[in-house]
Amino acid sequence: MLRAALRAFSGSGSASRQRLRPPACARVEIMALKQISSNKCFEGFQKVFEHDSIELKCKMRFGIYLPPKAEIGKCPVLYWLSGLTCTEQNFITKSGFHQAAAEHGLIVVAPDTSPRGCNIEGEDESWDFGTGAGFYVDATEEPWKTNYRMYSYIKDESVSAFAPICNPVQCPWGKKAFGGYLGSDLMKWEAYDATHLVKSYPDSHLDILIDQGKDDQFLSAGQLLPDNFIAACTERKIPVVFRLQQGYDHSYFFIATFVNDHIRHHAKYLNA
Amino acid sequence: MLRAALRAFSGSGSASRQRLRPPACARVEIMALKQISSNKCFEGFQKVFEHDSIELKCKMRFGIYLPPKAEIGKCPVLYWLSGLTCTEQNFITKSGFHQAAAEHGLIVVAPDTSPRGCNIEGEDESWDFGTGAGFYVDATEEPWKTNYRMYSYIKDESVSAFAPICNPVQCPWGKKAFGGYLGSDLMKWEAYDATHLVKSYPDSHLDILIDQGKDDQFLSAGQLLPDNFIAACTERKIPVVFRLQQGYDHSYFFIATFVNDHIRHHAKYLNA
Repeated sequence: MLRAALRAFSGSGSASRQRLRPPACARVEIMALKQISSNKCFEGFQKVFEHDSIELKCKMRFGIYLPPKAEIGKCPVLYWLSGLTCTEQNFITKSGFHQAAAEHGLIVVAPDTSPRGCNIEGEDESWDFGTGAGFYVDATEEPWKTNYRMYSYIKDESVSAFAPICNPVQCPWGKKAFGGYLGSDLMKWEAYDATHLVKSYPDSHLDILIDQGKDDQFLSAGQLLPDNFIAACTERKIPVVFRLQQGYDHSYFFIATFVNDHIRHHAKYLNA
Repeated sequence: MLRAALRAFSGSGSASRQRLRPPACARVEIMALKQISSNKCFEGFQKVFEHDSIELKCKMRFGIYLPPKAEIGKCPVLYWLSGLTCTEQNFITKSGFHQAAAEHGLIVVAPDTSPRGCNIEGEDESWDFGTGAGFYVDATEEPWKTNYRMYSYIKDESVSAFAPICNPVQCPWGKKAFGGYLGSDLMKWEAYDATHLVKSYPDSHLDILIDQGKDDQFLSAGQLLPDNFIAACTERKIPVVFRLQQGYDHSYFFIATFVNDHIRHHAKYLNA
């Protein structure tokens, strides 16, 4: 649904349009976007909008960078999905992605990571579940299933990642989140697990880039499990460029160091 | 004093030294630095340290970026002095300076902008005076004069600026801060005012670079007054490169856009 809203930007090529038109071939939804902020950056504009999400039944904010090329023509859209504890602000203020996005003419959308302020019991009790930790799943369990529908809110087309939780059904974060949002049916868990999904991916035409800090405390804590993902890819003969970066941790300092490589990676396909 | 502490970094060329040796020709002060954080970034390290400041009589934090070159040799030090409301975090997390500093082999120090937690009456009452707004002056008035000695804590050698308060004795921010910290003697105010200082600067061998957003709300509000500074430089035949950047505001998005130019500007002299 967020994507339908955003198509108006890439389709119109106008950085100033703030009322959305429904795309062809999509259900008709007219919604108002309220501009929260707009800052010129590398000749484009970093904006933040708020809208009423029908899917999540609450107000949601997202960041959108409109490169200078968006003033004169269509640009492809790249989605950045942030991790635990983040809002729409972290990536846009800390990653330093703007220069590369301006250069390659990519619109970059950074959504929030969960519904907020829904007054669900327990939503603010822990940093790795509830507010700031939607896990991009459609919850099926009470009390989460009404609002926590981040999968439907955002569908990810981007195939590159920084320090991803590669195999959530096997790690403590994933077990907590999937148990809470999805209940005890393991089949439902696997539908959101990259290592399981890649095993049944219909073709091998993927170009996956993963950067992982070697000193990332969540790697050594067994939360990320990239080896399991790589093994699944190897079995399916899907190539993965996995870069274990010596000395780097899980912070935005790590992301800023390699973000240009990721923007370039996506631009190669999006501008093809 | 902060500089004396930091000289140990540039002098030793060691990124891991955390206890400071007194430089030659300086008063002897041995102080302990407590490392708060360390993150690898563009092959160097962004660190934050805390120390007991003798000058300010409180604990102070500063950010320091050690470029990869600091592992093998001496590097010059560039000081970034943040503006109102900032801590040592803003520049290091939001400006995207690391890549250029790594490339040019510059150590970059980002101090905090005021003493903190001194329990001075009124220190947290406004965002443009007191905590977060030390104005880099040595206060002479009660109750500020014991702790608010930012000028002695840091002496600025950097001659480039983003949206600076060029003529504080003429603007509301400056009148409030200087009146509070320095009292009513205008001579004392002028000692901290760039427009006045440049009039008596002993030579014209300066290379000043200023970027200013044209849509900066503080420019139109008469807080920054760059015209007065430029006029004073013109009178003294001191060249200024003043770039009025169309559409840009006062945010770190503006700074990030042009920070590479400033790093290069300083590297030209510091690496000469």
